[in-house]
Amino acid sequence: MQPNWRSVDAQTFLDNRGALKVLDGPVLPFLPQRVFWVTGVSKNETRGFHAHRTGHQLMFCIQGGVSVRLFDGLIDQKVAISPNSPGIHVMPGVWGEQTYLEDDSILLVLSSIAFSEDDYIRSKEEFELFIQQAK
Amino acid sequence: MQPNWRSVDAQTFLDNRGALKVLDGPVLPFLPQRVFWVTGVSKNETRGFHAHRTGHQLMFCIQGGVSVRLFDGLIDQKVAISPNSPGIHVMPGVWGEQTYLEDDSILLVLSSIAFSEDDYIRSKEEFELFIQQAK
Repeated sequence: MQPNWRSVDAQTFLDNRGALKVLDGPVLPFLPQRVFWVTGVSKNETRGFHAHRTGHQLMFCIQGGVSVRLFDGLIDQKVAISPNSPGIHVMPGVWGEQTYLEDDSILLVLSSIAFSEDDYIRSKEEFELFIQQAK
Repeated sequence: MQPNWRSVDAQTFLDNRGALKVLDGPVLPFLPQRVFWVTGVSKNETRGFHAHRTGHQLMFCIQGGVSVRLFDGLIDQKVAISPNSPGIHVMPGVWGEQTYLEDDSILLVLSSIAFSEDDYIRSKEEFELFIQQAK
């Protein structure tokens, strides 16, 4: 059984001028309609607590470390991401929680859709219903 | 006379769980076909030194500070960006150099086109020729 997420490698170009990480061409599973980044989160703080009905997301940890919980109704997994790890392509219908593992962690997220409150599932009850209907 | 760049404000959502910065909908001047971020650059190091023939770029400083030099053949400007400032939409035909002002500075760039070496102008001589032809 395949979970509704997969890892995505950014290209990395390292030299004495620093590190360049690139998502380009076929590595991008969609053209982002929304881009956001999260900074200044205290260590052990958890954000997220929602799923998307139709939106895909691509998450990369740019600094520090983030533990990403992913739950699609059957598989419940935690994946630790960091600047040295791949990112995660999260497909629709996955409940997500992100725990920031260090004070200076930064998460970058690309979304396949512009913001729409209707796309969010923000309660566990609503998520259970969504999972049942999707079966 | 208008330069070939303009500032772009990300939406900012600040609360006790951290800072969320968002580019969404009409704020995005194009759908990004390439996304990259630069980390680990030493203070006072300068990167860039090229222009694009057709590609647009959107640059945001996610951490630290970056001084961005922009030169379109007429206007030569330096703009300091930081997490508290707007980002910059750089249009085609602008020579760019980015000087990292702090050791831990991070630059995020969204590009309107996938990577193509043909789109890069990497020498001042070639840039002068491009500017002359564009007149």
